[in-house]
Formats: sequence, structure tokens, C-alpha cells
Amino acid sequence: MSVMRNDIMFLRSALTMQNPFNSTEQVLDWIREQNRKILVNVRQISFKEMVPMWQFDAEGNLRHASGKFFSIEGIRVKTNYGGVPQWEQPIINQPEIGYLGIITKEIEGVLYFLLQAKVEPGNVNNVQLSPTLQATKSNYSQVHKGNKPLYLEYFQNAKPEQILLDQLQSEQGARFLRKRNRNIIIRVEDEIPVYDNFIWVTLGQIKALASMDNIVNMDTRTVISGIPLHTIADMELPKRRAWGYDLLHDDCPYHTTIEILSWMTSLKCKYELNVMPIPLKEVEHWGTTDMAIEHEDGRFFKIIAAQVEINNREVKTWCQPLVAPAQLGLTAFVIKKINGTYHFLVQGKVESGNFDTLEMAPTVQCITDNYTGKNNQPFVEYVLNAKEEQIRVDTLQSEEGGRFYQEQNRNLIIEADDSFPVDNLPENYIWVSFQQLMLFLQFNNYLNIQSRSLISLIRMI
Amino acid sequence: MSVMRNDIMFLRSALTMQNPFNSTEQVLDWIREQNRKILVNVRQISFKEMVPMWQFDAEGNLRHASGKFFSIEGIRVKTNYGGVPQWEQPIINQPEIGYLGIITKEIEGVLYFLLQAKVEPGNVNNVQLSPTLQATKSNYSQVHKGNKPLYLEYFQNAKPEQILLDQLQSEQGARFLRKRNRNIIIRVEDEIPVYDNFIWVTLGQIKALASMDNIVNMDTRTVISGIPLHTIADMELPKRRAWGYDLLHDDCPYHTTIEILSWMTSLKCKYELNVMPIPLKEVEHWGTTDMAIEHEDGRFFKIIAAQVEINNREVKTWCQPLVAPAQLGLTAFVIKKINGTYHFLVQGKVESGNFDTLEMAPTVQCITDNYTGKNNQPFVEYVLNAKEEQIRVDTLQSEEGGRFYQEQNRNLIIEADDSFPVDNLPENYIWVSFQQLMLFLQFNNYLNIQSRSLISLIRMI
Repeated sequence: MSVMRNDIMFLRSALTMQNPFNSTEQVLDWIREQNRKILVNVRQISFKEMVPMWQFDAEGNLRHASGKFFSIEGIRVKTNYGGVPQWEQPIINQPEIGYLGIITKEIEGVLYFLLQAKVEPGNVNNVQLSPTLQATKSNYSQVHKGNKPLYLEYFQNAKPEQILLDQLQSEQGARFLRKRNRNIIIRVEDEIPVYDNFIWVTLGQIKALASMDNIVNMDTRTVISGIPLHTIADMELPKRRAWGYDLLHDDCPYHTTIEILSWMTSLKCKYELNVMPIPLKEVEHWGTTDMAIEHEDGRFFKIIAAQVEINNREVKTWCQPLVAPAQLGLTAFVIKKINGTYHFLVQGKVESGNFDTLEMAPTVQCITDNYTGKNNQPFVEYVLNAKEEQIRVDTLQSEEGGRFYQEQNRNLIIEADDSFPVDNLPENYIWVSFQQLMLFLQFNNYLNIQSRSLISLIRMI
Repeated sequence: MSVMRNDIMFLRSALTMQNPFNSTEQVLDWIREQNRKILVNVRQISFKEMVPMWQFDAEGNLRHASGKFFSIEGIRVKTNYGGVPQWEQPIINQPEIGYLGIITKEIEGVLYFLLQAKVEPGNVNNVQLSPTLQATKSNYSQVHKGNKPLYLEYFQNAKPEQILLDQLQSEQGARFLRKRNRNIIIRVEDEIPVYDNFIWVTLGQIKALASMDNIVNMDTRTVISGIPLHTIADMELPKRRAWGYDLLHDDCPYHTTIEILSWMTSLKCKYELNVMPIPLKEVEHWGTTDMAIEHEDGRFFKIIAAQVEINNREVKTWCQPLVAPAQLGLTAFVIKKINGTYHFLVQGKVESGNFDTLEMAPTVQCITDNYTGKNNQPFVEYVLNAKEEQIRVDTLQSEEGGRFYQEQNRNLIIEADDSFPVDNLPENYIWVSFQQLMLFLQFNNYLNIQSRSLISLIRMI
């Protein structure tokens, strides 16, 4: 029972594409069908039109009338990391820890995941596959007087032996102030109701669907990224497996775990990050107009007000702020086989909203601004000029559509060629094996959300 | 090399009491000699006498003229943990990460630790054994115009393969605002100078010396607590070993590590801790007189001003604030063999200055106020009434003498008898095996300083 047993179930599900209930084609059809049944209208409005539900307080911060949900506030950042020693910016402050929960069930030896076709106002394509439960405390303490979220009670009442994974993980450190979610996977034994827009899929199917653009939402990706996958002796394997399965062989990590922890400790001691809340109206180089909170040069992102109308069987309307990016983002891991074991080139990256100064980020994490010659972050050229045969993953993935308006990042995993250096990297970079990443993923605030998204995309089959 | 090799060296040193250079008796004599050579005079003065080096700012916070070192500030705490939903208190704010570093060296197959006989103004007995290096950033960036700390360069220049341990660990959450230190152990190969008040000892000797009252200081205890100790196959063992060696056998943990992490995650989601900086002069129920910052009922602790004079070969004098406790404290682990494996009863405890809401604390952690009938914390009666044969550790240990004035805690480890329950414990308590504690100790902010102090006292021989 317990650890070993769960490991087997997870790996077997990651290696299973055959789903007698819903083939992957059927899942895609079903998503299209969900999209057909729904009409989503998101219209940018002025901030005035959001009053009284959302309004600016005396400090210029944008808040919900209940004091719950989230607010847009200002921060002043001082750091000795990177080229800019001080700046001010708006940030999303959402001090609540939300649930991102997936229910699983073993059926005939295979673990199935209950996902939801969920519409979010910021989605580029209306419906994406989200966790069974995606709820902030304000949601489930019913501030908005809506119904209790479906399946909430399964998570609230789960017994310890039902819990397969339960971690606090970070959101985007450049956008959220120290926000974390509870990433949780539970297993049920008994029959449970499957509501209209829910579906059972294997982990292998989720990863296959995530190899397409904008099908699997960020919340699902972060939850499944934490699933520990290891090789398991004597387990019968499908003949054809994907490249990702090779990552599981991990006989010879280039650095010991103690070395990696020491690398992180030394960076945390070296870099100071001082974040001070300030009134949004005092944030330098940013201004608030009727229609947007935006940077004077139109850079980074802006905050807009949105009127959302969703027509399903019933009509729901509400208004809320959304964060709209200025550009497409790029996140990329360079991986390389060293001494027979695959390694990920991890970056220690300081971001203003980080809970603990820095987290492990992908080799490259930037917005397009950063790679159009305006600065020279390491390895950007390398990943953008990778040859076809080096590309292991290349998809567009959405940020969470409940907060971000049509924000997409290009997610790349690039296998380094022989010319790529093993040693003499910049100080902030280190090679970490896949099993070492799996270990760090079990603990809070080691891998940032961009690196977790990339890890979730790795297919075993 | 690397992991396995270090493990062997640590365990062998923990099992070694024979030190051809310094027997344990000689170490004690040497400490006495160090004490004879030194004259320490700590005199309580008024805050006015500390001006201009230390003075109150407009908000009533007590600061050093340089803006460095530390300050005494006010906080307002709101939490749904425990019986008091809101309070205000003074707290030490020291945002710098300091070094607590020990140099080790292998001599004829045994690892020796270089400790320092260090005098601190708050020590009850002048000199205690401290790490090789104990320095804040203000120390080593030479704000006080003193000399560069001895051995600093060994830590600053250590190569990755020399680093045996390197962690950020917390200080007292009730006294310090999110303070952490870099706990680091390095190994040198070459000869190094051994200055006058430094000495080479084995890990076994350190633990033996820590079984006496107030010999091994808090900083040494926290560093050595992080040393991973495991059983090692085929290793030749001394015939007589201490009770602690039995803890290393860890075949059957009562909870999986996932269950323990989930327990911590759920407590972090349940308990809210909101800490707001406020001016010290506004802190309710606390007042500042000429001589002390203290609670109106004389409870908890007070901040005093001290004039320190240390006569060694030269005379050093300075003044600084110190924290003086109102009472002796009590920290205790209850341990119990369950399914043949020893387990520690760990408490998830919220403290106002915690970095991440709660950490793993000992079964009992309180000041005497708390156990003289004024409240009923669980298990206090049990550990205080333990029979002689249940007591595995019972010593007085000092808090760090650079900040705390003669503050001692009674450190107890009690082996539960058969009557002690395994199940149906209060929600905040869980059984954790020794190897699981070793795992959590490798990561930041899982075990609090009181539980680390207790773990450091466990003798293998």
C-alpha cells in the first residue's frame, strides 16, 4: 500500500493512452461540444462601470466591495538581483490559499483523473481542461453567494490515506504577491457523480492533450507537475514510449542534492529582495486611466476592467479586473544528457512577488520584449534557434484565465547539442536531474510555476 | 565520494569519543581555562546611556545608529491559531542572513569539528562552545569597524565539493521577525591555523558536552542538528552505543512522508497569520521606561540595555539591547517506539515571527507561565511527571547569548510508556520518524529552532 503503490498507479496512468470510456479523440470532440454549448462574451469596460462591485480606494488600490477575492495594489521593489536596483509596479494581492484539486479513481488497474471543461473569461478559446476543483476561499466560503463548488466536500473530508499529493505551490512571482495554491490529488474508492462538464482521463491523455495549444489549463498543469514519476522495477511497459520516459533513468546526477541545496542557499543569501506595499496611485511610471492601469511605455502588462457574460443553460454575468500582457512570453528548459542521465538547466530567478526570494525557474523565462534585442538574457538565442531535431516540446500554453486576459507563453523543451557547455555556466544556473526535480517538487516554493508548467508537458508515452 | 562518503564520516564522528588531541575532560578543562582568562562584566544601563549608538526613533523603535545589526520594533498579530485572536508585541527585526559555520577536517579517518570558546554578553557562564564562524552580514561587512571575523574566507571561498551541509534555518519565531541563518558545514583538506580559543572535537564529543548544562551554545546545536545520520551497512560499530543509535533504524514509519507533508499543508491552509509592523510606542499592553521595554504584567520577556565589558588580552566594551525572559522555558519531545521504529511527537506550531506560518515544534514548547496552571497545553503534565527511566535527555540549554540575557530552556526527551496514545491525538500533533525528521531538516523552515536544539542533543554513543 501507500508510497510504492501510488508510484505504480501514477506511472501506469502516465503510460496509458487507451481509455475505454473516452478516447483522446472523444475528449477533443467533447471539448468542442462544450464550446458549442456555451457563449462567452468578454467586453472591456471602464473602471467606473465596475462600481460598486470593484472600486479604487483612497490609496488608488482596486478592491472588491466584500474585501475578499483579490486586489490590485502597488509595490516598491529593491533588489541587488539583475540590472534594475529599484522599481515600482502594480501587483495582484490575493492572500488566500485556494484549492487546485483533482479527484482520481482506479478503474481496472488504471488511475483516472476527473477533469472539468471550464470556461474562464481570460481564456483564448473559452473552455480548457481544469482540475476537478478550482476554488478560492472566497469561492467556497460563498462570498459571491453562488453555489458551493462541486466536489468541494470530497477534498474537505478526504482521509490521510486518500491523499496522493498535497503541496503549497507558488503562482507567477512577477504578478502575484506571495500567492500560493494548495495543489492536491485525492483518490476515491466509491462511485461518485460525474457532472455534465466533467470527464475521466488518464495521466497519459492529459499529457497528450497538453502537447496541443491551450487545451490543458495552467491549474491542471501545476497539479500534475507535482506527481512523482520513477522507474519501477518489473513493471510491464508498453513497447513504444515517448522521449520523456528516458528522463526517469537517473543513475548519475551531475550534482548531489546537497550541492543543489547549497547553490540555492548561497543565492538566497546573496540576493536581497525588499518588497514594500505602496499605494497604487503612487507607483512610478504607471498610470490609471478610465480604461486601464498601464505602464507609460505600454510595457509589461496592463490591468483592465471586463464585463463577462457566459450563456450556458443559464446566463451568468459579472465584472472583474483582468491582467492583459503586453506580449507573448517565452519559457524554455534546455535539457542535456550528462553521464548517461538527462539534466535540466535550472535558473535561480528572483521575482518581486516570490515567497522566498528566488525559486527554480526554466533556463529561459522572459517576455518577447526581452528577446528582441533589448537585452541579452542567456540562452534565449540558443533556444530560439534550436534545430527541429532538438525540439522536444513546443506549444502555446495559457496562463490562468480567471486572472489573465488571453495570456500565452510559448513552452519549449530543447535538447542541447554537443556544443552546449556543461560547465562554466553563469552563477545562477545549475544542472538538475529529473528525479532531483521530483524531490524538490514535494516541498513548497522550490520550483516556480513556469518550470512546473514545462515539467507537466513531458510525455511518457 | 560525495553523499555516501559524507554520511559515513558524519556517523563515524558521532560514534567517536576518543580524541587523541583533546579528550572530553581536556575540553572541559580548556573551557574552564578560557573562562579564567576572561573577565566579563555586563551591567544593565538606561536606554539614554546607549545614545547615540542605539536610540529610539520617532516611532519608538530602537535602532542602531548605522541602521544595521538589528532593531526592536512593534508588530500587530492576527491569527485564528490558539486562544488569542489578536495581540501586539515587540519583536527583533534583523533582516540579514548570518553565517553559522563549522569547519571540519578528516584526521586519520575521523571527522573533527573546529569549535570556538566564545563569550557572549547574555551567557549565564561567559564562555560556551560556538561554531567556527558566527557572523552577521553587519559583522563581516565590518559595520562595527572591528576586524574581519576569523575563518570567514574559508566559507566564502568553499568549493561545492567542500560543502557538507548548507541550509537556511529559522530562529525563535516568538522573538525574531522571520529571521534565518545560514547553517553551513565545510570540510578543509589542507592544514589551517587553529587560533587561541579554537579546538578540534568529534561530533560524539559535542553531543556528550551538550548533555551537560549550558556548554554547547544554540548556534552550534542548530548547525549539528542538520547533520544527516543514517545506519550504514557493514560499518564497524563500537560495542556500547547510546540509546540514540536505535533511532537510526527506521524500517517502518507510521505515516508516509506524503501524509506528513499533507498534514503540514492542511495546517498552513487552516491557520492564518497576519503580522503587521506597527510603531513600538503604539504596542498595546507594553511600555517603555528608562530601563526596559516590558509587558504591563511583567510577562513574556523584556528588552533591556546592557553595558558590556570583556577583558581578555585587550579590553572591549560596547552597549547593546538584550532580551531578558520572564521565566525559564520548557521544550520536550515525547518519543515512542511504534511498529519497532522510534517516532517523535511533533507539534505544528504557529509563532508570530515564523517565515511560513508554522513549523514543526517539539511536543511541548512553553514558558513556565504556561505550565503553572494558567493554561493547559497538551502533554505538559505528562513530560513533567515522567519517571526516571523514561527520561532520555534532561538538560538546561541557553538561547543565543548575543541577543538573549541568561535565557535558558529545559530540554527534555521523554520515552512514552505504554499508556501513551498512538492515535486520536489533537489535530496539531503527528508522529514523525527520525529519518523523516532528517529529510525535513534538509529543507528550509520545516523544523523550528527548539526542535532542532533537542535533536542536536541525541547521542549515538
